[in-house]
Amino acid sequence: MTTLRDIGEDALIARLIPFVPRDPQPAAGPGDDCAVIDPGPEYDTLQLLKTDVLVEQVHFLSGTPGRWVGWKAVARVISDFAAMGGQPERILVTLALPTETAVEWVEDLYRGMSDCLLAFGAVLAGGETSRVPPGSAPVISVSATGRVHRDHLVLRSTAQAGHALLVTGLLGGSFPDKHLHFTPRVHEARWLTTHFKPSAMIDLSDGLARDLPRLAEASGCGFVLDEACLPCAPGCRTPQAIEDGEDYELLFTIDPGRVAGLLDAWRVDFPALPLTVIGRLVHVGAGNPLRRGWEHFPPQS
Amino acid sequence: MTTLRDIGEDALIARLIPFVPRDPQPAAGPGDDCAVIDPGPEYDTLQLLKTDVLVEQVHFLSGTPGRWVGWKAVARVISDFAAMGGQPERILVTLALPTETAVEWVEDLYRGMSDCLLAFGAVLAGGETSRVPPGSAPVISVSATGRVHRDHLVLRSTAQAGHALLVTGLLGGSFPDKHLHFTPRVHEARWLTTHFKPSAMIDLSDGLARDLPRLAEASGCGFVLDEACLPCAPGCRTPQAIEDGEDYELLFTIDPGRVAGLLDAWRVDFPALPLTVIGRLVHVGAGNPLRRGWEHFPPQS
Repeated sequence: MTTLRDIGEDALIARLIPFVPRDPQPAAGPGDDCAVIDPGPEYDTLQLLKTDVLVEQVHFLSGTPGRWVGWKAVARVISDFAAMGGQPERILVTLALPTETAVEWVEDLYRGMSDCLLAFGAVLAGGETSRVPPGSAPVISVSATGRVHRDHLVLRSTAQAGHALLVTGLLGGSFPDKHLHFTPRVHEARWLTTHFKPSAMIDLSDGLARDLPRLAEASGCGFVLDEACLPCAPGCRTPQAIEDGEDYELLFTIDPGRVAGLLDAWRVDFPALPLTVIGRLVHVGAGNPLRRGWEHFPPQS
Repeated sequence: MTTLRDIGEDALIARLIPFVPRDPQPAAGPGDDCAVIDPGPEYDTLQLLKTDVLVEQVHFLSGTPGRWVGWKAVARVISDFAAMGGQPERILVTLALPTETAVEWVEDLYRGMSDCLLAFGAVLAGGETSRVPPGSAPVISVSATGRVHRDHLVLRSTAQAGHALLVTGLLGGSFPDKHLHFTPRVHEARWLTTHFKPSAMIDLSDGLARDLPRLAEASGCGFVLDEACLPCAPGCRTPQAIEDGEDYELLFTIDPGRVAGLLDAWRVDFPALPLTVIGRLVHVGAGNPLRRGWEHFPPQS
């Protein structure tokens, strides 16, 4: 018997995709941050779909205030919309909770979701609740619809060798606090797609060590990471910036000729948020490998 | 401290709804089978959104073949689209599974989802996976988008006192097998909305005892159930038909003057599926109460 631990998340998804019918002409292949639905060339706006999940003891510790968990549950999904250049519209919430969960904690969870929905102009459209058996971890799943203007859509798969790699914000040290309070980079992504449209983009949820190879591979490229340039969060060093995960910053690529202009304009409009060149994409086989990032089904050590 | 067990599912949802921003002008209020998104009067088609969840030991037993669980996970959501007169389009799947889960079981789960998607013309648009801590129950959440023609939309809240109550199929005895193999009544609902549009409709997921009061309450009515007329599944008697739940049949209302014509036409087009008048809606306070159906957070006995 092969278990999920034996093969890991990416291999699991690759094995599952052939089993199910998919859009015959998808606007974006499986494996991007969101599914992209093209209603037809007469429409300017594409629909984005995303589902995500928080599990206690995996994505947050027991005893974490519901309000922080609620913020994170919604913010993670919104971060994926940002990574495509889009915005959230409506969310659906599925709660699978032990019967002994305090109602007050669930109300706080909804307050936190509300904080994040209000901050980014989205609404709750529906939900579902179930109990889980005694001793099972609470599970909070958030699905959402979003939208992106056809001209602003950014995929993971459209970068080219030679393009510069940039990252917003500071990396590493997301535990114990930042992963519960981060700001999805929706406004920054909209600014980018309007003024300096990236050739590819992804949000850093599983860490640079996993998400950078995903972007490069989707674009058919290798990469060179300039580790000395990494913008490390206070108290962090390069390994944490590469491996910790849950940064929820934007990692994107752009033609190297546009980098200087981008950095100048960025400093004016986002003076408080660093934007850093951290490397470049190269032809396959010419880059350097990376340490591991976050793995959802970690091998037994 | 108040727990979920103390207040139950419907009261929990009622407490949570005020905390979060919602559509300022929703096409259907919270509490219907799906959320209804109206893109504007120039469009004939409305979008439907739904999320649902299966939890091991709650919705299926340990050791149930993955293929059956996969069918049920998708079919439950499709049944909700049917209840609005609509059809499914795209699903998102979130898996929260123990790391020791067999990959083969997950592949079978996807085969079962595929069976159901193919049967009803829907596709997989995306997904998410996470582990759960050791000892936690597997959780499978399915969210979906669907569509309904504006003229075919049926809500729970639009029935009137005097309307006849009808139900498709046979009720009760959904365990141990039928709840894993049921057929969502998409085709029957489409036929109804085209030829004999119901004044209100709901799918029977939690049992007549809970879903009939929900429909009646949403419509501002009471109800009279003619228990002697209930179409009981083989081996079942009236209490099971009322309380078992997971029938996934359609419960709907229609003007009493149209019932005879409906029954005649139904027998021609669906000769193998019973359609039964089981009572009527009445003014609030004039009806009869019912036994309990399925409760997601049952009180301790």
